[in-house]
Amino acid sequence: MDLPTRLRSALGAENVLTESIERYVYGKDAGLRRGDVAVVALPASTAEVVAVMEAAREFGVAVIPRGGGSGLTGGAVPMADGVLVTLTRMNRIHEVDADNRTAWVGPGVINLDLSTHTAGFGLHFAPDPSSQSVCTIGGNVGNNAGGPHCLAEGSTVSHVLGLEFVTADGEVLTVGGKAPDQLGLDLRGVLVGSEGTLGVVTRVLVKLTPNPPDVRTLLISFDDMASATATVSGIIAEGIVPAALEMMDRNALRVVENYIHAGLPDVAAVLLAEVTGLPEAVDAEARIIEEVARRHGATRVRVAADEEERTVLWLGRKAAFGAVAQLAPDFYLHDTVVPRTKLVEVMAAVQAIGEKYDITLMNVFHAGDGNLHPIMGFDLTEPGMEARVVAAGEEIVRVCLDAGGALTGEHGIGTEKRAFMASVFTKADLDAQARIREAFDPDGRMNPDKVLPAGSRCADLGRPLPEGAWV
Amino acid sequence: MDLPTRLRSALGAENVLTESIERYVYGKDAGLRRGDVAVVALPASTAEVVAVMEAAREFGVAVIPRGGGSGLTGGAVPMADGVLVTLTRMNRIHEVDADNRTAWVGPGVINLDLSTHTAGFGLHFAPDPSSQSVCTIGGNVGNNAGGPHCLAEGSTVSHVLGLEFVTADGEVLTVGGKAPDQLGLDLRGVLVGSEGTLGVVTRVLVKLTPNPPDVRTLLISFDDMASATATVSGIIAEGIVPAALEMMDRNALRVVENYIHAGLPDVAAVLLAEVTGLPEAVDAEARIIEEVARRHGATRVRVAADEEERTVLWLGRKAAFGAVAQLAPDFYLHDTVVPRTKLVEVMAAVQAIGEKYDITLMNVFHAGDGNLHPIMGFDLTEPGMEARVVAAGEEIVRVCLDAGGALTGEHGIGTEKRAFMASVFTKADLDAQARIREAFDPDGRMNPDKVLPAGSRCADLGRPLPEGAWV
Repeated sequence: MDLPTRLRSALGAENVLTESIERYVYGKDAGLRRGDVAVVALPASTAEVVAVMEAAREFGVAVIPRGGGSGLTGGAVPMADGVLVTLTRMNRIHEVDADNRTAWVGPGVINLDLSTHTAGFGLHFAPDPSSQSVCTIGGNVGNNAGGPHCLAEGSTVSHVLGLEFVTADGEVLTVGGKAPDQLGLDLRGVLVGSEGTLGVVTRVLVKLTPNPPDVRTLLISFDDMASATATVSGIIAEGIVPAALEMMDRNALRVVENYIHAGLPDVAAVLLAEVTGLPEAVDAEARIIEEVARRHGATRVRVAADEEERTVLWLGRKAAFGAVAQLAPDFYLHDTVVPRTKLVEVMAAVQAIGEKYDITLMNVFHAGDGNLHPIMGFDLTEPGMEARVVAAGEEIVRVCLDAGGALTGEHGIGTEKRAFMASVFTKADLDAQARIREAFDPDGRMNPDKVLPAGSRCADLGRPLPEGAWV
Repeated sequence: MDLPTRLRSALGAENVLTESIERYVYGKDAGLRRGDVAVVALPASTAEVVAVMEAAREFGVAVIPRGGGSGLTGGAVPMADGVLVTLTRMNRIHEVDADNRTAWVGPGVINLDLSTHTAGFGLHFAPDPSSQSVCTIGGNVGNNAGGPHCLAEGSTVSHVLGLEFVTADGEVLTVGGKAPDQLGLDLRGVLVGSEGTLGVVTRVLVKLTPNPPDVRTLLISFDDMASATATVSGIIAEGIVPAALEMMDRNALRVVENYIHAGLPDVAAVLLAEVTGLPEAVDAEARIIEEVARRHGATRVRVAADEEERTVLWLGRKAAFGAVAQLAPDFYLHDTVVPRTKLVEVMAAVQAIGEKYDITLMNVFHAGDGNLHPIMGFDLTEPGMEARVVAAGEEIVRVCLDAGGALTGEHGIGTEKRAFMASVFTKADLDAQARIREAFDPDGRMNPDKVLPAGSRCADLGRPLPEGAWV
C-alpha cells in the first residue's frame, strides 16, 4: 500500500489530495516561496492526526503542519517531500468555560471566529493579527502571533494555557492546563512559536480576555515622523500602556484612504492609540495621551465618537495589506523589532533601501513595541524583481539588527530568516535548541529545514555549516 | 586531587565548605526535610560556576543549586551526594536599562534589594513573595515564584526576558533577550520553574515594572468566609483585576494582630484588596470593590489613608509566617490552587483535617487566583509530630486536587510533591518532560531526585516505577 492509499483509508478519500493542482494550492503561504509535497492530508480529529503521523513514520517522510496559510515567512511551505497536514477541518470550539475564562479549541478555528463565538460571554481572544479573519488559532500558536492589541496583552504565548499535540512518533501529549501556574517543566513556551517543528498541535486551551467596559480610540496627526515617534516614547514614559499604539506613514495613509475612504489625513504620520478600561480610567488616559501628543507637535487629535467610527479607524489599519494591491500586484513585508529610540533613524534607512532597489515602501506598524512592518509593493513578473525584493528585505533586516533590534516581532522565522539565526545566537545556544527539537523528534521529520539553520546541532555532521555563518 | 581541593583552587579556600557544621547549615531549606552533601561551593562569577560544573562532571557527582534557602518544598535540599552550589555571592546588579525597563542581575540578588535599587527610576520587580527580604532572584526563577501582586502582573516567568545559565557539562548558554518576542525555540518557560534540574542560572534579564502613579488599599471585614469568597468572585466578575486580592481567616488575624498590632479586626475573614493606576482609575475601581463587598455582606471597609497605613496593612499580610512562632516553634505550609467556586468547601475540609490531626491551622492566601496556603503550627520535638504534619499535608493536597485544583501555585514541586506528579500527568507527559531534562543534562547530575518522579523516563529501567503511581 502506498502512502496516499494508506492515508485515504484512514481519513477518507476526499481528505487526501495528490493532484498537482491541489498540491500547488497548498505549496505556498502568503509569502514568496513555493514548495511541493507528495500528498496533502486534511485530518478531522486527534485520532486522524495520529494515523497520519504513524503513516509518515512508517514511510519515513516529513510532516509539514499548516493552518490558514496566511503566514509570511514560509513556515508552512514544504521544504522536504512528505505529508502536508492541513488542520483547517479541526475547527471545533470544544468547550467555553466562561467562569474560568478559558476555551478548548481545535487548531483550525479561525482567530476572529473564536472572539465572535465568545462575545456573548463578554470575552475575546486577545491576539488579533491583521489576518485574523483568515488565520487559525493553530497558526497563531505556531508563530506566537501578535497583533495591535498585544502591546498591553502580550502575544499568543500569554494566552495559551495548555496544548494537546502529537509527536512525530504519533504520541499524544498534553502540556499545561487551567491552573495559573504550571507544574514541572513548562513546555508551553517551547511549543508556542515552534512553527510545527516539534509536533502537530491538535487542541489549544486558550485564555479568554474580558471585553473592556469602555474604550477610547484616538487618531493623532503629525507633520513629521520624529514627532510621532517622540510621542510614543512620551506616552510610555507617562506610565501608560495603551491597549494599542499603531503608526502609519504618509504612503500607507494615502493608499489606505484611497481604498476605504475613512477620512484618514494626508500627513507625514498618524498614531492610532487606543485605551481601554473603566470610563473614568479611559477618559484620564485619553486626556494624558492627547496632552503628550500636543506637547510633541501633534497637529490634530481625532477621537472616535462612537463604535462605528472606531471600527472605520481600525479597518484603515488592518486593511493596509489589502490596499497595497492598488499599487502593485504583489506585496511582501518584513517583521523586525527596533528599540523605540532608534525608530526615526531606522525608518529613514529603510526608506533609502526602498529607493536604492526602486521598490515602493509603506509603513504600518506596532509603534508601541517598536515592531516594524515595512511593506514592499511590486510586480513579481518583472524580470529580476524577486531577487531585488529579497535583497532589499535582507538589507532591511540587517539595518534593524545593527540598530540593536530583533529578527522578528511576530511573524516567525520559517525559511525566510533561518540564515539570520546564526547572527543572533551562538552555536551553543542553537545547539541547545536543536537538542530540544531532537527530544521531541529524533528523526528530524517535523517540518524540516525550518527555524533552526542547518548545522545547529554539534553532532549534525552530515550538513556542513555555512561558511562564516557563526558570529 | 580530591574534589574539595580542586574547588578550593578554583574559588579560593574560604568559598568551599566541608565542615559538618557548615554542611548542616546548608542541608535544609525553610521546609521540613534535611539532606547532606560532601561540599558546599560559593562561586562569585559565571567562570567560577563553570569551574564547579567541570569539577563535578569529572568527579561524576551531582550539583544542587541554592539561592537564599527560603524555599518550602525541598528544591534546594541535597538528595544526592555532590556539590551544593550557593549563588548568594553572585549578587551584583550588572545593568539597569531604565529606557527599556530591564535589568541584568546576578542570581544571588535579594528580591527586595532589586526593587529598592531601581526605585530611583520609578521601577520595581513585580514578583513579591512574602520572603522577598531574603529570597533571591535566582530562587524566584527556579520556583517561578509568585506573590500577592502576581494576580495582575503574573508570576516570575512573566518578568524574565532572558537567562544565562551553565549546563551540567559546563557550557554557558543564553536564552531570550530584550526583544518582546523570542526567536526560535523559546527555552525561558522551561528554565523558569525548573528548580535547578536543567543547569545553574548565572545571570537573569528581568523586566522592570513602572511604579504605579496611584494606589488604594482596602481592608474589608466579613462575618463569614462564604461572603468573603463571594466578594472575590464578584470583583473579578466586574472585569476588575486588582493588583492584589488577599484573604486572611480569623486564626491568622488573631495571631498577626497579637504580633504587629496593626488594628486588624477579630472577624471570620478579611480581604486585603489593592488597586493601582491613574488616580481617576483607582478611585473608580476602589468604589466598585466597596460596592461589591457591601452587596455580599461586608461588615466594614477600611481604606488605607496614607502610605504608612498601607505599609502596616501589608506588613500584617506578609508577617503571618513569622507570627506563627507565637503559637508553636515550627510551622509548615502547603501551596495548592483550587477553583474560586470551591474555596468555601475546600477551606472547611482543610479545617477538618487540622482538627483530625490536632494541628493548629491558619489561612493567609492569594484569594484572587484561589492559591491556598494553609499554615500549620506545631512542635517538631513532640513524638510522632512530623508524621502527623506530613499526613495532614498530604490529605490537604488530595482534597485540593479532588476539587479540581492544582498541585502548586508558586512554591514548586521539589521533593515534597514529587510523588503527586503522577496523579496529574500521564506517563507520556512525564516522559516528554524527562526527555527535555536529558537534553540539557544527559547524565542526570543536576539536582537529582527533584520535580520529576523516579521512572518518568520510559527508558528509565533502572528505577522501578512505584506501585500504583500512574493514573
